[in-house]
Amino acid sequence: MSDTRFDVTGIGNAIVDVLAKTDDAFLVTHNLPKGAMTLIDGDAAERLYGQMSSPMEQSGGSAANTIAGLASLGGACAFVGKVHDDVLGDSFRDAIRGTGVTFDTPAATDSAPTARCLIFITPDAQRTMQTYLGACVELGPRDIDPEVIQNSKITYLEGYLWDPAAAKEAFIRAATIAHEAGNRVSLSLSDPFCVDRHRADFLNLLEGHVDILFANEDEITSLYEVDDFDEALQYVRGHCEIAALTRSEKGSVVVSGDEVHVIDAAPVEQVVDTTGAGDAYAAGFLYGITHHLDLHDAARIGGVAAAEVISHMGARPAEPLGSLIEHKLHINL
Amino acid sequence: MSDTRFDVTGIGNAIVDVLAKTDDAFLVTHNLPKGAMTLIDGDAAERLYGQMSSPMEQSGGSAANTIAGLASLGGACAFVGKVHDDVLGDSFRDAIRGTGVTFDTPAATDSAPTARCLIFITPDAQRTMQTYLGACVELGPRDIDPEVIQNSKITYLEGYLWDPAAAKEAFIRAATIAHEAGNRVSLSLSDPFCVDRHRADFLNLLEGHVDILFANEDEITSLYEVDDFDEALQYVRGHCEIAALTRSEKGSVVVSGDEVHVIDAAPVEQVVDTTGAGDAYAAGFLYGITHHLDLHDAARIGGVAAAEVISHMGARPAEPLGSLIEHKLHINL
Repeated sequence: MSDTRFDVTGIGNAIVDVLAKTDDAFLVTHNLPKGAMTLIDGDAAERLYGQMSSPMEQSGGSAANTIAGLASLGGACAFVGKVHDDVLGDSFRDAIRGTGVTFDTPAATDSAPTARCLIFITPDAQRTMQTYLGACVELGPRDIDPEVIQNSKITYLEGYLWDPAAAKEAFIRAATIAHEAGNRVSLSLSDPFCVDRHRADFLNLLEGHVDILFANEDEITSLYEVDDFDEALQYVRGHCEIAALTRSEKGSVVVSGDEVHVIDAAPVEQVVDTTGAGDAYAAGFLYGITHHLDLHDAARIGGVAAAEVISHMGARPAEPLGSLIEHKLHINL
Repeated sequence: MSDTRFDVTGIGNAIVDVLAKTDDAFLVTHNLPKGAMTLIDGDAAERLYGQMSSPMEQSGGSAANTIAGLASLGGACAFVGKVHDDVLGDSFRDAIRGTGVTFDTPAATDSAPTARCLIFITPDAQRTMQTYLGACVELGPRDIDPEVIQNSKITYLEGYLWDPAAAKEAFIRAATIAHEAGNRVSLSLSDPFCVDRHRADFLNLLEGHVDILFANEDEITSLYEVDDFDEALQYVRGHCEIAALTRSEKGSVVVSGDEVHVIDAAPVEQVVDTTGAGDAYAAGFLYGITHHLDLHDAARIGGVAAAEVISHMGARPAEPLGSLIEHKLHINL
């Protein structure tokens, strides 16, 4: 591995979240598939936005949330993603830079506006996401700075990148550069429906292109088209160096070669909004493995980070994760 | 392996359960450690028995429950355990023989009466056990019929056998005969307090004397004196051929060499009485591995058997497990 400047560089859709509480009836009325992320166009986004009551805006995006979480833990990070040169784009840039993250991807100027994700949170803390990708579709291979990737221990890619066509090429270019530099590539499967859209590609990626896989139970069972977590676990073993599988209140299971860890979920007083749980887990886990912690502790840090994020509205940490981990797990970061 | 007559021979304390519902205040008043099995003498058993409201009697004993469960699945089984020649002893014998199990251990005639276990079930379905071992202390090496052990694919031993001194010798004799015949030995750790009493012996047993270990989360963390399930999991791997670790509503984890399975708990409409959950799981699991099923299916059968037993009062199945498994798991037994 080269002498790296960054622990992790994340590449993902640069999205501003618009969150609002709602009820299940609203989802039914507007035909929103509960718990999933659906892609919508700008008009639909405008219409739905008008229906949200007291919406709260916060920078989001799956990989961007993970990078913000890593920064909150004290990791050195960069982010690559495409905003438009508009108010939301500025707000996204300020937020991620404000956490100490390097974010130098040029904003698009002649494209659609900055992406937004309308997130509807039901009383059961489940989130239903409607995403307008906007400027994200402009992200392409030329946005990948080889030097940044060469200087990152891990390049982290969200599965959602597979949706916009040019971003997929950026994804592949980044993975290739990372491996050529002797660094590692990590992928989050993002969403069971995203897995459904790109199953063959993702299965192919796991054969040699991805070293560290993140998936929740729905995603990994969707990937292998099985009903049962244990069956998926058997399939994934041996197809990447490390697989970290999250299971909500059942905690996580981490497999790496012959090594297996079964980690309990961290306690949460009240689950308020599950948006970003997987992103935060990935942040904690990646922090651990880029800081010479073992997989057991890496997974526990992931669990505590996820617990923090689901205990309040919004997908990014509301308190500094570094001191939280030290306090809860007695691990010195 | 010789041409065996029995799938499993269980050796354990022959105990009649006396079950009654109670509340937490009763446990506090009588200083009964909740969730645990405590050994008491005959006088204390008499006194406590007098305090039980509408007690229900049913044959019990940890290994005996497992053997009864195996028989209910259609397994060919034998049981070795010591009753007294009294009414309770006759009832125990009739019940286990009634399930088709071979039970030929001679009753004691000049000993204490047949053992009983007073089980107090609190509204949270937790059971608190007070055991008077009675005639069980008479079980000794001479009660082990070498031909039965030689003719059993698996000899299954409960950790509670370590409490009465002569039974421990029977335990060791049986394990030695089983291994000399090329058969396998299985141990259930029984109870975290039992593990606490005999930790050094149990750790020693795992080095070459036990092929298949059953333990719940409290027992395995007690064995290795760690706080965390995953730590215990790392210790147990490689110390026996198969370890099946049960985790109540979190399901079970099975490890065998490089193989690992993480199995969900079977759904239960209402948990009524958790007595015998681990025993039933062991029954299902042992049925699976003595009938050429893989560890994944063996653990699922264990889970469904446990779910059946905790959905009603009493530690033995209330309905034939064989047809239940076929119905729930679509596995033909």
